[in-house]
Formats: sequence, C-alpha cells, structure tokens
Amino acid sequence: MTVTPAESAAMARARELGASVLGTTSPNPAVGAVVLDAAGAVVGEGATSPPGGPHAEVHALAQAGERARGGTAVVTLEPCAHTGRTGPCADALLAAGVARVVVAVPEPTQLAVGGAQRLRAGGVDVELGIERQAAEEGALAAWLTGVRESRPFVVWKAGATLDGRVAAADGTSRWITGPVARAAVHALRATCDAVVVGSGTVLADDPRLTVRDADGRDLPRQPLRVVHDRRGRVPSGARVLDGAAPTLVSRAAGPAELLAELFDRDVRRVLLEGGPTLAAAFLRAGLVDEAVVHLAPKLLGAGPSLVGDLGITTIGAALDLRVRDVMVLGGDVQVRLRPTRHTGVGRQADGRD
Amino acid sequence: MTVTPAESAAMARARELGASVLGTTSPNPAVGAVVLDAAGAVVGEGATSPPGGPHAEVHALAQAGERARGGTAVVTLEPCAHTGRTGPCADALLAAGVARVVVAVPEPTQLAVGGAQRLRAGGVDVELGIERQAAEEGALAAWLTGVRESRPFVVWKAGATLDGRVAAADGTSRWITGPVARAAVHALRATCDAVVVGSGTVLADDPRLTVRDADGRDLPRQPLRVVHDRRGRVPSGARVLDGAAPTLVSRAAGPAELLAELFDRDVRRVLLEGGPTLAAAFLRAGLVDEAVVHLAPKLLGAGPSLVGDLGITTIGAALDLRVRDVMVLGGDVQVRLRPTRHTGVGRQADGRD
Ligand SMILES: NC(=O)c1ccc[n+]([C@@H]2O[C@H](COP(=O)([O-])OP(=O)(O)OC[C@H]3O[C@@H](n4cnc5c(N)ncnc54)[C@H](OP(=O)(O)O)[C@@H]3O)[C@@H](O)[C@H]2O)c1
Ligand SMILES: NC(=O)c1ccc[n+]([C@@H]2O[C@H](COP(=O)([O-])OP(=O)(O)OC[C@H]3O[C@@H](n4cnc5c(N)ncnc54)[C@H](OP(=O)(O)O)[C@@H]3O)[C@@H](O)[C@H]2O)c1
Repeated sequence: MTVTPAESAAMARARELGASVLGTTSPNPAVGAVVLDAAGAVVGEGATSPPGGPHAEVHALAQAGERARGGTAVVTLEPCAHTGRTGPCADALLAAGVARVVVAVPEPTQLAVGGAQRLRAGGVDVELGIERQAAEEGALAAWLTGVRESRPFVVWKAGATLDGRVAAADGTSRWITGPVARAAVHALRATCDAVVVGSGTVLADDPRLTVRDADGRDLPRQPLRVVHDRRGRVPSGARVLDGAAPTLVSRAAGPAELLAELFDRDVRRVLLEGGPTLAAAFLRAGLVDEAVVHLAPKLLGAGPSLVGDLGITTIGAALDLRVRDVMVLGGDVQVRLRPTRHTGVGRQADGRD
Repeated sequence: MTVTPAESAAMARARELGASVLGTTSPNPAVGAVVLDAAGAVVGEGATSPPGGPHAEVHALAQAGERARGGTAVVTLEPCAHTGRTGPCADALLAAGVARVVVAVPEPTQLAVGGAQRLRAGGVDVELGIERQAAEEGALAAWLTGVRESRPFVVWKAGATLDGRVAAADGTSRWITGPVARAAVHALRATCDAVVVGSGTVLADDPRLTVRDADGRDLPRQPLRVVHDRRGRVPSGARVLDGAAPTLVSRAAGPAELLAELFDRDVRRVLLEGGPTLAAAFLRAGLVDEAVVHLAPKLLGAGPSLVGDLGITTIGAALDLRVRDVMVLGGDVQVRLRPTRHTGVGRQADGRD
C-alpha cells in the first residue's frame, strides 16, 4: 500500500468532506471523495447527498469534468457496485476515465460490494485500506456500527460541574455550562439523526431539543426528538411536542429495544442527552459508543450526578473509558471518550441503499 | 517600561529558575535571577537557596564573575536592601558593576524594600514591574499570599472519576488515576511545605504522604505531613506517624486556625490532599487558592464525591472557578483552576528573612 503525499492530503480532505454531511445521509454512509488530475492537483470534491441524491464520487467527478481523465479518485469508502436509488459509482469512475482509485474502508455489505473488483477489471489501479482506521473512527463510525451491529451508534453527551453534578440540589441546571459549550451541543445535535432523553429530563427541564443557530432560530433540518417514557408520564403540553420537529415518545422496554425502534426508522447516529438515569441504563447495557462530557469549572457539593447507579461497588469494577481528546470550550472543558470494553459484534446487515 | 527580547527571554528563564526551587525556600520567596553580559548573552543563572543560604542574585553573580560588569541582572523579585541571614543583594549587584537591573515584582515588605532605590543611587538603571503578573502567578504566588494575608497559599489536589467520585461505594479508591498522574502528585508535593489531610483520609486509606521517586523511595527533603484531627481519632499505628518525615497531628478548630498554625511554622505553600469533608471546609472558608483536579476516564455511579456539602442548593450559587490549563497526564486529564471570587486581603506581614 503506497500513496503519494498528495493522495494522503486528499484522503484527509475526503474525511473532512464526509464529516461535513454527518447527520444528513442516514441510512447511507457519510462518504467524502476528492478527485486529483493526472498531475496530482485537486480538481473535484464531493460528499454524500441526502438519501436518493448522488453519492460523493459522483459530485467530485462532476466538478472535475474532463480533468478526471488519467487522474486519481480518493474516497473514504469503496465505491459501490450496485444500482440502488443511484447508479453504481464504480461505473461512473470508469466512465470518467480515472487511472487510479485510493480507498480507505473496503465496502462491508454484501449488497454494495464489488466496486474495487469492477474497477480493476476495467484496468484501474485500486488501493484499498489506506488510512483505514482514521476513516472508520470518523464520519463512517455510525454507519459501520449499523452494518455490524444492526443498531445506531450512540453518542452520550452530558454537562456537569467539576464535581460531577448535572443539576443543583433544588433541581436547577440552567445553565451549568457557558454559551460556547451550549453552541457546541447544537452543532453536535446537527450531526445526529435523533436526540434521546428520558421522561425525567422532560419533566424536570421541559427542553425543546431542536437544533438552533446562534440567534436561537431552529435550523431547517432537525433530528428526530425522542423521549423514552415507559410509563407515559410526558404531558401533552411538553415543549418537545411543539411540532417544530418530529418527535417520538417511545414506550420501548429498554435501551436495546429503543435503539431497534430507531434503527428501523433509518436512524444511524443517536445523541443521548440525558439525564443520569437513562445514561446509566445505556451504559449498563453497553450501548454507549462515544461520550462527550462538558465540565464547567464550578462546584456544587450536592445534586444529581452525571450517571445514576451502575451497579458498581468497588474501584476495580469501574467502567473504563479512553480519552480521545480534551479541549477548552469557552470557559468549560470538553472531554471526548470511548468506552474501552466494547459490546459484541451483532449480526451483519445491509447498510446502504 | 521597555525591555529587549534578550531580557524578556531571561525573565522567562528567571521564572523557571524560581519555580525549580519552589518548596525549598520558605519562609523566603522562590526567586530566579539571570545575569546577561554587556552584549546580552547569558553569563549567570541562580535561584534562592534554602533559608540561610545565598539569594538568587548572589548565585547568578558568582557564576557570571567579571562578565557581569556593565551587564544586566534580570530578577523575578526586587533585590533586597536589608541584611538578614545574608547581606543585601542590592549591594552585591553594585559591587559586581552591573549597569542595569530588570525586575518583575517590586518588593512588597517594609523589611526588605529599598533595593531599587539603592541601586539607582549607585547609578544603575532599574526597570520595575516587567512581566509582573506572570511572576506573581508563578513561583512567587505562595510567598506573596503569605505577605498579603499572613497565611499559606493552598493548592487543593483531588483525583476523581469522570462522574466526580473520589472512592467507590465500598470505600476503595486505589487507584483511581494512573501512574503518570500519581507521579505528578509526588512532584506537586515536592513543591509544597506541607501536605494536609483530614482524619477521615487517614482512617480510610492510611496514606504515607511522603514524596517518593519513581522507584517508590522517599526523597531526602520531605514536606511536613499534617493531619487535621479535631477529635484525636488518628491511631498511633497510622503510617503517617512512621517517622519517615515530620508529622503534625493538629486539633485546630478549623481551616483558618490550621493555616495560622502552619504559617507560624514557616509553611508558605500547602497541598490540601483530601478528602471531600476537609476540601469542603476549606472551600467554604474561601481558603483554596488553586485547584489541581485529576480526572480518570472512569465511571462509578456511586461513592463519595469530590467535595462534601458546600451549603449550595441552587445553580446560580455554584462556587465558580476559572480554568488555568488542561492537559492529558497518561490516560487521565488534569485541570488546573483558580477560584474566581477571592477572599479578602489580610494584614500586611514581613515575609522574608
Ligand atoms: N446537564 C446535563 O447534561 C443534563 C441533561 C439531561 C438532564 N439533566 C438533569 O437530569 C435530571 C433528570 O434526571 P433523570 O435521571 O430523571 O432524567 P432521565 O434519565 O432523562 O429520565 C429518567 C426517566 O427515564 C425513563 N426511562 C426510560 N427508559 C429507561 C430505562 N431503560 N431505565 C431507566 N429509566 C428509563 C424512566 O421513566 P419511566 O419509567 O417513566 O420510563 C426514568 O424515570 C434533571 O435535573 C435534569 O436537569 C442534565
Ligand atoms: N481521590 C482523592 O483525591 C482522595 C483524597 C483523599 C481522600 N479520598 C477519599 O476520601 C474519603 C475520606 O473522606 P473524608 O471526607 O472522610 O476525609 P477527610 O476530609 O480527609 O477527613 C474528614 C475529617 O476531617 C476532620 N476535620 C478536620 N477539620 C475539619 C473541618 N474544619 N471540617 C470538617 N472536618 C474536619 C473531621 O474529623 P474530626 O471531626 O475528627 O476532626 C472529618 O471527619 C476516603 O474514601 C478516601 O479514599 C480521596
């Protein structure tokens, strides 16, 4: 596996392009593609359109036009070989006359596999598995979890004080974190297909759960709002039922059942936003894939903690995570983590159309 | 106030030199000094010796020798003008023939003030207040707190899980953080004159509280070990009483009384190491100057929290801090903070010998 520096730079850009459409492509993967001309200059860029629209390669090829001939296509996922709502990307690449295709992640589904083979049969030089881990852990992570485990990828977001309190003793929690961290939460929501809370959060805080811009206006595209409310306690006047975005009030028996319900609705990336009871239920079920914790430089000394009971009584049994990165967000600290013990791999599924 | 780039670089180095002797100079300030020759090249460096030994300027001048003549001395604190256990540094600078002295912090005590005046009278060009804030917040902070408030500076250190637990439900807490964070705690202890815990920590964990190297061996210089034990509950077999380092078991009525007792023993920088009850008492009294929190990427869901009751019931009344810096230490996250509401300024005292 050898790639040129220009191809490696193009792959980093392709990952960025994929990430830029995260939350708009489900149930399809958020793919990024860059086309280089024969001299190695960038002549086209593309990312997956919403379902039914063109795939990333098609956008990048259209931008490149004739300059793609003899050039190289750099893609985060192996171009598909099947005709779904759009034609096979492998054929589009052959028609454009590219000489070489550099791919990060090989196609994992039976339905779409065969792109590399078809390209090679057409005389194209194909490199598979280039910078694969970075692509798998980036914008493709949610879709790959769907393919491998037939469930959505779960990002657990929580905001707490330095001593781990998500609210004060009297239940007040607005605002623990500052405006920069809160804006980051809206940006995070926008990358997800659904935002999930428990009935407790609705009853305590009555949140709207929409994605809003800096002026507080709802953005056009909204993730599905989901309330896990097994006992039907959410009142009809709750703001989450205001009609500003679709809302699902679910009586699913537990986290796995809720995720199955969401998966069937094409949800591939879920933001679990609260509170400690539901977070504990997901963590105990091994159904958290990533954690984004905003820590405010405050101390409360009392109030509900970040997570409810995990059934852990001794330090050696603590639930372990791994720090991915740490940054300062305004006056707050953001820590992103991944659980170290991952749940088993589920059944294989066809993950794209 | 104008300094050359060489002088500014020398001041940064002087701050480092001061920091390198933090924990060994009390009740004297941890000062750093750099001597530049007439051409601006570094020809001498020095830092304060333990009490009774030479001050920083004297070390730097000795190293510089004749090259100091016509040169510049860059010092974090105004050179003293009085004869304590050592002679006045101002006279040493005059004798060495330096043409210019650049100072960060003007001498705040009545006892030692007058160095700049004496130097100017001797024809030396003196700049006062250069990069003053950085010096005041660095190695001089503890000593300045002593001068201004007649009490030691308090660094509160705590290690907790991401959900703010300092121990599991069954009381086990070894080890929450990893080896790199634990080594950092030993390095932090070495910068302090005393390490303070409550009787609860001794009864729960029976810690030694010594400064140890990477092989677990006690270092030659040890801070005073202090147990705040108002009811005399610490047993005579406690490891903190093993004789490996001096230990004070104090029955002081509260944090202020304990700090007064320590101040009288020449302690200027205290590491408050535990547990939640004592931390809460210091925080409520406004007697924490800096916080160093090590967060392990673990979740427990139960167990004692970082701080005990602070008497705060609503979010608007939370105790606010400001993040100074964040770093990853091994697998853990270190957050350093300063409280934003600072306690009042106490009576003036003579802070150096
Ligand atoms: N700072 C933050 O990031 C943040 C975010 C959210 C909330 N909060 C705070 O958290 C507090 C609310 O906490 P909470 O724990 O009550 O909220 P929650 O976790 O959102 O809701 C808890 C409720 O969810 C329902 N639920 C659904 N599925 C469940 C399952 N599998 N296991 C357990 N419960 C399930 C239960 O009610 P049913 O039995 O009726 O289904 C349960 O009472 C508020 O103070 C709020 O301000 C803070
Ligand atoms: N992870 C960490 O960084 C860390 C560090 C230390 C401890 N810990 C954990 O913390 C737990 C111990 O907690 P703790 O809160 O009992 O320990 P603590 O704060 O060290 O000790 C509490 C005791 O200090 C005494 N005390 C002295 N002055 C006081 C004052 N002004 N106000 C209140 N109490 C005062 C009280 O006993 P008297 O009334 O008898 O004086 C009180 O019971 C253990 O599980 C330990 O493992 C964790």
